[in-house]
Amino acid sequence: MSVLVVGSIALDTVKTPVEEHSDLLGGSACYAALGASFFSPVRLVGIVGHDFPESEFQFWKSRKIDSEGVQRVNGKTFRWSGEYAWDLNTRETRSIALNVFEHFEPVLPESYRRTDFVLLANIAPSLQSHVLDQMERPRFVVADTMDLWIKTTRSDLDALLRSVDLLILNDSEAREMTKETSLIKAGRRIRKMGPRYIASEMTKETSLIKAGRRIRKMGPRYIAIKKGEHGALLFGEDDQFFSCGAYPLEDIHDPTGAGDTFAGGMAGYLAGTVKKVHFNDLRRAMIYGSVLASFCVEAFSLERLRSLSMEEIGRRYETFKLMSQFEVPSA
Amino acid sequence: MSVLVVGSIALDTVKTPVEEHSDLLGGSACYAALGASFFSPVRLVGIVGHDFPESEFQFWKSRKIDSEGVQRVNGKTFRWSGEYAWDLNTRETRSIALNVFEHFEPVLPESYRRTDFVLLANIAPSLQSHVLDQMERPRFVVADTMDLWIKTTRSDLDALLRSVDLLILNDSEAREMTKETSLIKAGRRIRKMGPRYIASEMTKETSLIKAGRRIRKMGPRYIAIKKGEHGALLFGEDDQFFSCGAYPLEDIHDPTGAGDTFAGGMAGYLAGTVKKVHFNDLRRAMIYGSVLASFCVEAFSLERLRSLSMEEIGRRYETFKLMSQFEVPSA
Repeated sequence: MSVLVVGSIALDTVKTPVEEHSDLLGGSACYAALGASFFSPVRLVGIVGHDFPESEFQFWKSRKIDSEGVQRVNGKTFRWSGEYAWDLNTRETRSIALNVFEHFEPVLPESYRRTDFVLLANIAPSLQSHVLDQMERPRFVVADTMDLWIKTTRSDLDALLRSVDLLILNDSEAREMTKETSLIKAGRRIRKMGPRYIASEMTKETSLIKAGRRIRKMGPRYIAIKKGEHGALLFGEDDQFFSCGAYPLEDIHDPTGAGDTFAGGMAGYLAGTVKKVHFNDLRRAMIYGSVLASFCVEAFSLERLRSLSMEEIGRRYETFKLMSQFEVPSA
Repeated sequence: MSVLVVGSIALDTVKTPVEEHSDLLGGSACYAALGASFFSPVRLVGIVGHDFPESEFQFWKSRKIDSEGVQRVNGKTFRWSGEYAWDLNTRETRSIALNVFEHFEPVLPESYRRTDFVLLANIAPSLQSHVLDQMERPRFVVADTMDLWIKTTRSDLDALLRSVDLLILNDSEAREMTKETSLIKAGRRIRKMGPRYIASEMTKETSLIKAGRRIRKMGPRYIAIKKGEHGALLFGEDDQFFSCGAYPLEDIHDPTGAGDTFAGGMAGYLAGTVKKVHFNDLRRAMIYGSVLASFCVEAFSLERLRSLSMEEIGRRYETFKLMSQFEVPSA
């Protein structure tokens, strides 16, 4: 089955402590679509300007990524520029130019409306909802998000969550999301915790486990929390829980897009492999998402993913098995 | 087989954002010995003052923890006081009173010298070496350490490492340890990395995977890196690698002693179960260490460990299996 992917398509400038590159192909939809394409056909939704390379449309075609849903308009493509700190764990956005993205209103081609699997890659929750509204009862909806939307468009996000099957977010975002927005609720929680806490801090969940379980109650049946070099957690019904490490990489060249690729790998694996999604399918999907993300960060932009083979993916999947099993007899 | 455990025996004062307790039984040896005792008999080495509760000796006896190696001298027991930040992830030492520990020179009873398994719990590396020197060719030596020794007694630690089979340390300590002490080496490394790095930072390893592999080259055959809520990593020969998550706890009451209990659980499991240690044994040992640490933090001091049963340990071990497997068919 196919997976519909909507998100940003961007030209990035990325600076790490050792390198800087500009005009890189990026954006959540590009990473997610390419990640998903290893497992299933993709229907891509997005917007680009006149400066966007024609060659990319050819590349998508060669990878069974349908670009009928990508609008090409006059103006410049969305641009993002970011700089990573020395440890590559934190980054700062240096500049954003929305350009053609500013007035983007995703309109799904007729042929897209009956796609069974949907990945709402990281864009504003109102746009994610707008896409979902045009679809005819998809089977499984995956949504990715980021701190910006949690902080600035929380009610849009809350509305979206009621239609989402799997929400993907990172650890700091999960903690951010469990901050009480209601002062009344916050006050009640503070009272239960004793007088020594600072109010502004205590309303933010410190336990990721609690955060994951609480976010499940906001709507999505499943929550995946990405923890970068520490792997990922998965929460399901009845306290179902899965935890996996990250692939043991020695060197990371550019973390940009790792989360989008993770989401793409998960959604693509589900669309390509599973009819009705159960928790055990999501376990494997998370491993494949982790495998793809581990390749993504080995080079700038989409370069490593472009040259990646299914055989390489299979080998890292086997490594994940070896590195996580403990009920094996001694040699 | 028995495991010899040497480390500190302390009376602690612990303050978390919600509670404060004083005169708690603590110290690396107490946590480690009790952790190990679930799997094998323990021979304890340490020192206490006249203010140390007699009842603890009775408790040890009831748990097959031999206290013949615990010196009782005139003076006050070692005291430590610490305060945890609101998220319980960082702590500050408020005060330390070495007391009887200041002139501690561990002397092993004759009956201890032929113990096959040794856990050098967290104390000064010179004391750890002193204990090891009195032993007759132990089969497997586990050592725990902390940032203080890495920073202040590095050459003692380096000397010890050559006799250690398994070194246990936490993630920030692993990064700390891979700092080049030689300016010449640091200079060479800086040159290879490009001019944008800040010299003082770039000599500290940012990749935990690289750090783990580099520390292996300093002597120990195996390295276990504890990552708190993110689980633990294990490194062995030929890039053998194991990664496990942490038990999904919602609430932590007191993180004190979690690392010591982890080390005790690992060493005890090995002593009680394994003749010749292989990497696959260490995988299971790390799970048992994690299980015990997860109980430790559920209450202040040793309280939760005192009431813990093998059945409860077994149930959490099963949870670890469930939460880490991904090659299971869909329900």
